[in-house]
Amino acid sequence: MNGGWERVIPAFRSVCGEDGVSLGAAVREQHGRDESVHRCRPPDVVVWPRSVEEVSALAKICHHHHLPIIPFGTGTGLEGGVGALKGGVCFSLRNMDRVLDLHQEDFDVSVEPGVTRKGLNSYLRDTGLWFPVDPGADASLCGMAATSASGTNAVRYGTMRENVLNLEVVLADGSIIHTAGRGRRKTSAGYNLTNLFVGSEGTLGVITKTTLRLYGVPEAMVSAVCTFPSVQAAVDSTVQVLQTGVPIARIEFLDDVMIDACNSFNSLSYPVAPTLFLEFHGTEKSLEEQVTVTEEITQANGGSDFSWARDAETRGRLWKARHDAWYAALALRPGCKAYSTDVCVPLSRLPQIIVETKEDLMLNGLTGPIAGHVGDGNFHCIMVMDPNDQDEVIRVHEFTERLARRALALDGTCTGEHGVGLGKRALLREEMGPLAIEVMQGLKATLDPKNLMNPGKVL
Amino acid sequence: MNGGWERVIPAFRSVCGEDGVSLGAAVREQHGRDESVHRCRPPDVVVWPRSVEEVSALAKICHHHHLPIIPFGTGTGLEGGVGALKGGVCFSLRNMDRVLDLHQEDFDVSVEPGVTRKGLNSYLRDTGLWFPVDPGADASLCGMAATSASGTNAVRYGTMRENVLNLEVVLADGSIIHTAGRGRRKTSAGYNLTNLFVGSEGTLGVITKTTLRLYGVPEAMVSAVCTFPSVQAAVDSTVQVLQTGVPIARIEFLDDVMIDACNSFNSLSYPVAPTLFLEFHGTEKSLEEQVTVTEEITQANGGSDFSWARDAETRGRLWKARHDAWYAALALRPGCKAYSTDVCVPLSRLPQIIVETKEDLMLNGLTGPIAGHVGDGNFHCIMVMDPNDQDEVIRVHEFTERLARRALALDGTCTGEHGVGLGKRALLREEMGPLAIEVMQGLKATLDPKNLMNPGKVL
Ligand SMILES: Cc1cc2nc3c(=O)[nH]c(=O)nc-3n(C[C@H](O)[C@H](O)[C@H](O)COP(=O)(O)OP(=O)(O)OC[C@H]3O[C@@H](n4cnc5c(N)ncnc54)[C@H](O)[C@@H]3O)c2cc1C
Ligand SMILES: Cc1cc2nc3c(=O)[nH]c(=O)nc-3n(C[C@H](O)[C@H](O)[C@H](O)COP(=O)(O)OP(=O)(O)OC[C@H]3O[C@@H](n4cnc5c(N)ncnc54)[C@H](O)[C@@H]3O)c2cc1C
Repeated sequence: MNGGWERVIPAFRSVCGEDGVSLGAAVREQHGRDESVHRCRPPDVVVWPRSVEEVSALAKICHHHHLPIIPFGTGTGLEGGVGALKGGVCFSLRNMDRVLDLHQEDFDVSVEPGVTRKGLNSYLRDTGLWFPVDPGADASLCGMAATSASGTNAVRYGTMRENVLNLEVVLADGSIIHTAGRGRRKTSAGYNLTNLFVGSEGTLGVITKTTLRLYGVPEAMVSAVCTFPSVQAAVDSTVQVLQTGVPIARIEFLDDVMIDACNSFNSLSYPVAPTLFLEFHGTEKSLEEQVTVTEEITQANGGSDFSWARDAETRGRLWKARHDAWYAALALRPGCKAYSTDVCVPLSRLPQIIVETKEDLMLNGLTGPIAGHVGDGNFHCIMVMDPNDQDEVIRVHEFTERLARRALALDGTCTGEHGVGLGKRALLREEMGPLAIEVMQGLKATLDPKNLMNPGKVL
Repeated sequence: MNGGWERVIPAFRSVCGEDGVSLGAAVREQHGRDESVHRCRPPDVVVWPRSVEEVSALAKICHHHHLPIIPFGTGTGLEGGVGALKGGVCFSLRNMDRVLDLHQEDFDVSVEPGVTRKGLNSYLRDTGLWFPVDPGADASLCGMAATSASGTNAVRYGTMRENVLNLEVVLADGSIIHTAGRGRRKTSAGYNLTNLFVGSEGTLGVITKTTLRLYGVPEAMVSAVCTFPSVQAAVDSTVQVLQTGVPIARIEFLDDVMIDACNSFNSLSYPVAPTLFLEFHGTEKSLEEQVTVTEEITQANGGSDFSWARDAETRGRLWKARHDAWYAALALRPGCKAYSTDVCVPLSRLPQIIVETKEDLMLNGLTGPIAGHVGDGNFHCIMVMDPNDQDEVIRVHEFTERLARRALALDGTCTGEHGVGLGKRALLREEMGPLAIEVMQGLKATLDPKNLMNPGKVL
């Protein structure tokens, strides 16, 4: 912090009021996610705007004074996206927490950036509707839009890319746009600005409202766990289930190491082998059929008998185990930190890349249980490491680069859902090639010519 | 045509060979769609490149000589997108007609711009896979990507926006990019260039390859026709069917005038009343359930008994009637031309806008049967008019503007799927507001600083 702030802070206070600006230690705490390996890079100042007008007014001040703007949702991002590499002003958006304009008949709703996924779904509880995109963490929905998040339900309901209908965005100069006009439906009116901002990770503007597509709560749900003799058998089952057109809602892969960790962490006793966690949504009758078809397929691939969960409580327990994977992995090596890699490849390439990756982990003495949204070809190694062991940190870094390059060689991507953030900028260049990167840089320069929006991220 | 072309054409010939360049009358013919009201604006030259390298080489020549580039797919677009407003070079892409890289296990395929929707589906015939996006016309798939097309199956399978996985694009300066690297899966790697080019209507680059998501051919399909006492009853049924989670594949609305026209044109005898054409895809068992639920809902809303079509032939006849709507409308007034409007609103607003629009048509003595993808809130009036009756042409123009504004006032869009092209540029400004238009202009200027790509369209 330097003298310059004394000049600017009164302007922030005049927008946010006395309680809306903070400097120093509290900030560092809020921004230092304990389990992540991305180093804490606190901003100089945090502001807590309460409305889009305040965000706009604050952005104008920043624009005038050339101050970086770092949007902050709930801080659950895994690629160091909220680090303030060049200092500047963190826009913490949690005070904008209204659910707006629920249109039940139209299956849509708008939310401010302080509303989280779980918050929205509890708001919707009595409407028969829900928002299915589920990255596990209880992230802000605008942050999920900013990172193009997906998660366990994407195989059936799509990612944020498919489920964001409109965004209100404050640009670097403080101007306010709606990416799809007033619309909240299918459109081919002009360039698709909505999907330009989805996944832009705070580098093009601050998302102050997102309009989301909702779905009817399914009449019934059943979950199941099934164990396989090999990764190949688990993936083959997945491909065949999808080929048959079973509208499966979740199909999650956990490798033997991950299952072992989940068993210990949650006092469970699943066989230690490649495993699928599945979930089916539909009417009672259609579930029967989905389940029968899936069971036949898994059995033909040598899968164990399903262990079923029909009631909400047992299902909850099962998915808690899946969602706790991060913490279960951390518990493998108490005192360590974790970094979750994230690659995605075409389905048919999954067995090869998972087998090669497990060999790589073994060879390099690394702890990296694997969990993945296998229906999308997307998986993570949760790398558990001692951050004080420089040699291990380097080996993890080299491993994640090898993994990403392996994905690229198989027509995949270096990130299926966590985004580029800080850590994958070099890989993004490899993935896209210099000309496409130039296009991205051109877009960034057009929307943010002073490079104030979350500088140092993505590109 | 002026002397300048004599300088440039040898360069084109050296890229395309002797048969690959044309001037004059043949061009005019190819570009003058007979039924459309957008005036024929032929280019100075047409080239027929055979590969992405040729497209790139030709684009470089155009870039060097400041010549407009107008990409041409199959010319089925409805908003005058292929008109050469400022002359220039039409890139007709029909000679690039290969299906490439079919990955059956991964449910994806890549196609060049000469491949049409029907062409692809007949190529896929023995694979158990299909590409469902269906705008009726047998359009090129790259042209469908360029216009963000959708059509009758969108309610279940999404539009081009959701089904394009990657694009190869030649930019205005001839450089070649892949919008999603080598990927053909879910990704959050950098800005979503794919969806920036989807719907860009040839104004940002020439799409030379599109990678598409495929689907398993459903085990069974049934279609049905159902008649309603009112527009409200038909739309209420639609909302309730979607709310119940029936995964309906097609749900198309035809108003009384449209049905009457279809009856005459196809020698059918459906009751002349608001009507839904429906289609269900699934397993035999799941179809039974979908159909029962839907029948209960439509009956509760006063719908007539379903008239069913289970076998392929009867289904084909039914959907032919729907797809012939354009020609059936034209036949209402022999010798006239037609213009298909295209707006989209949230579902709950459909009854209001359709009722008001029918009143408007009556009041102004216009012929405009209504057909729509009601599951998306998207509908068209097929305006049949005498192009030599200046007064009628003006009344149609004013009517379509009123209709679009009515859609905007109801949180809708001035185009759900046909795009902006030539005719809706002013409406796009109203829809997006000046700041968002500035953003779009900025994007255009970044990617095409000389304004060579399809100039005068969209913005
Ligand atoms: C245990 C665990 C499991 C996870 N599993 C998954 C998973 O399965 N799938 C998945 O996709 N993700 C997963 N994540 C990642 C995380 O949940 C997502 O990245 C989330 O979408 C980020 O939302 P957030 O509000 O926390 O954003 P933050 O972490 O606050 O910010 C992330 C990035 O988005 C920007 N940003 C945030 N809000 C805005 C805004 N309003 N406007 C503009 N930019 C903004 C930030 O500047 C930053 O660059 C997981 C995270 C954890 C901790
Ligand atoms: C009877 C009828 C019914 C229709 N119904 C529907 C419907 O229900 N839903 C719907 O969405 N559409 C519908 N359409 C519209 C039409 O089918 C679509 O707009 C189609 O997607 C255009 O594809 P095309 O190859 O014919 O493009 P063209 O007409 O050749 O071009 C359309 C635009 O796209 C650009 N373009 C074409 N190819 C490329 C390329 N390779 N690279 C870059 N730019 C390119 C052109 O420059 C132009 O701006 C209908 C059309 C007709 C005639």
